[in-house]
Amino acid sequence: SVVKMAKKVCIIGSGNWGSAIARIIGTNTAALDSFHTRVNMYVYEEMIDGQKLTEIINTKHENVKYLPGYTLPENVVAVPDLVEASKGADLLIFVVPHQFIRRLCSTLQNNIKPGAIGISLIKGMDHTDQGLQLISDVIRKMLNIVAVLMGANIASEVAAENFCETTIGCTKLENGQMFKNLLQAPNFRICVVTDPNTVEICGALKNIVACGAGFVSGLGLGDNTRAAVIRLGLMGNDEAFFPDNPPEIATFFESCGVADLVTTCYGGRNKRVSEAFVTQNKPIGELEAEMLNGQKLQGPETAMEVYKVLKTLNIAESEYPLFVSVYNIFFNNHPVSSFICLQEHPEHM
Amino acid sequence: SVVKMAKKVCIIGSGNWGSAIARIIGTNTAALDSFHTRVNMYVYEEMIDGQKLTEIINTKHENVKYLPGYTLPENVVAVPDLVEASKGADLLIFVVPHQFIRRLCSTLQNNIKPGAIGISLIKGMDHTDQGLQLISDVIRKMLNIVAVLMGANIASEVAAENFCETTIGCTKLENGQMFKNLLQAPNFRICVVTDPNTVEICGALKNIVACGAGFVSGLGLGDNTRAAVIRLGLMGNDEAFFPDNPPEIATFFESCGVADLVTTCYGGRNKRVSEAFVTQNKPIGELEAEMLNGQKLQGPETAMEVYKVLKTLNIAESEYPLFVSVYNIFFNNHPVSSFICLQEHPEHM
Repeated sequence: SVVKMAKKVCIIGSGNWGSAIARIIGTNTAALDSFHTRVNMYVYEEMIDGQKLTEIINTKHENVKYLPGYTLPENVVAVPDLVEASKGADLLIFVVPHQFIRRLCSTLQNNIKPGAIGISLIKGMDHTDQGLQLISDVIRKMLNIVAVLMGANIASEVAAENFCETTIGCTKLENGQMFKNLLQAPNFRICVVTDPNTVEICGALKNIVACGAGFVSGLGLGDNTRAAVIRLGLMGNDEAFFPDNPPEIATFFESCGVADLVTTCYGGRNKRVSEAFVTQNKPIGELEAEMLNGQKLQGPETAMEVYKVLKTLNIAESEYPLFVSVYNIFFNNHPVSSFICLQEHPEHM
Repeated sequence: SVVKMAKKVCIIGSGNWGSAIARIIGTNTAALDSFHTRVNMYVYEEMIDGQKLTEIINTKHENVKYLPGYTLPENVVAVPDLVEASKGADLLIFVVPHQFIRRLCSTLQNNIKPGAIGISLIKGMDHTDQGLQLISDVIRKMLNIVAVLMGANIASEVAAENFCETTIGCTKLENGQMFKNLLQAPNFRICVVTDPNTVEICGALKNIVACGAGFVSGLGLGDNTRAAVIRLGLMGNDEAFFPDNPPEIATFFESCGVADLVTTCYGGRNKRVSEAFVTQNKPIGELEAEMLNGQKLQGPETAMEVYKVLKTLNIAESEYPLFVSVYNIFFNNHPVSSFICLQEHPEHM
């Protein structure tokens, strides 16, 4: 019967992005026979004016703390216990800040339904002593994660139902299509591709490129120089990083590639702080304190990790002048004007 | 001998862009054995404060009218007669406003050196009663044009030696490489590809997409919606327009593709005027009068021509919702809000 085949969905996470996506998921599971209507949402419990957040969500149908002003569908049910929330779920939607992912996965490890599969909506990469790691790989070590969703979309615009696009990367097209059915909405349009690693790594490398775009603005250079940096950054998403599994060039045309890169290079904190790095001539740590409440900027960190990867893989620095230059400017006191060492980019040889 | 083999170069045009590129060409021909040092530049004669422009250029080495403030190399010689300027030239650089190209070509037709080849730096397309035509095709009907140069670069930034990139499209890689040797500079970086039609048509279609980007801004939508429009616009540069000669997807990654599209969609007159079309709610002709001194905006015109091409080739409108929507908004009074018919884009099906 339909009910028996219907997939049960659990959303793991209830922040800004988790709540925005819960609006879409709840609407879709209510409308489509292929999913159980009820969706559990794991909510890290906290008290809001003396009331539990889960209770507020389950009565007011609004995440008053992380997505105020938007209703959640009534079939999305907040559950404060992770094991209970995910019990019997066929589809797990991971949408928590990346620093919590290890602990959550180890809790889930022996408690999820056999055959359950997952999709990660978690942006960023994991920085460990062993270097950069894809978030999906962190999850994959413990659970059967099969897909990622990334693109030029932020929670506030998705919640407001502004038109935007995103990309699902999933090695098995059939699973990718199922997640698309679950997650697509009239103004949240999804393309499915089959190389999830490319989808995910684009989201990390873009932050390095955005630092370069910030330098260009800080140096007072124009739109065309910025466009060249964006283009060279896109070309830098290159096969060298994927020795076993070369990316499909078409994936760079997806929302996770060119679209996310462009928005990040025009707006975004990496661009803003890097521009200030040039115009205010302060150390990056001071700017992080002033402009980001002490949060680390991702671009410089990622540039350092990529630099280490180049060394480990024995790749010549001259193959990746943009990434190496950002690294040297932030960590080796190279002058920002040296960024235009892009003249020697292999693209132009 | 070297002198015998050295190629003679003639620049046809001396406006803003022609003068900027003459600075690079003159420097390169003086430095490289493979080119004659002396470069003739055809200058449409005019009087500036009672003195001939050619005389000013040949004595002051500055195009005081079209590129004031920048010196021209002394080996670039202004010549007011087109036949004399191009006499014996092996390489012709076409860099005049497109409305003059037919007349110039017919003058040249029986007067150029056998075996001479040309490159077009002319942006835009030719709108005739028979529809859209590539400028290179207009030239090709009369002369042996083999290459085009297009990209995210404007004369003022190239003259100022800001870092930027460009693309040469040339079916014969060897000729493309020769033009690259002639035209590349430390801050003007060139990639060569072998599908010149794609290079040239990208430059026309981008103006339609930029109208869409203007609508997005005018409607108050955010960066991610704009990024989606840019991405869908890039995907719209599609094989349907090239039934005989499908484009290489890699060319869309070149400066002529993604980079030029991005700058046009963030700045540029098509974006600005289309935004005003929404916010000021005036007919496009009125805005052209107010904002462009009565000049025609390219995007709407090109959208109409593309629409005609779709009809001629019997391509379903639903295959090109972005282009068709821009056409309908400008010419059929469709509301701008209908632009977000992009929901039905074939990319998301």
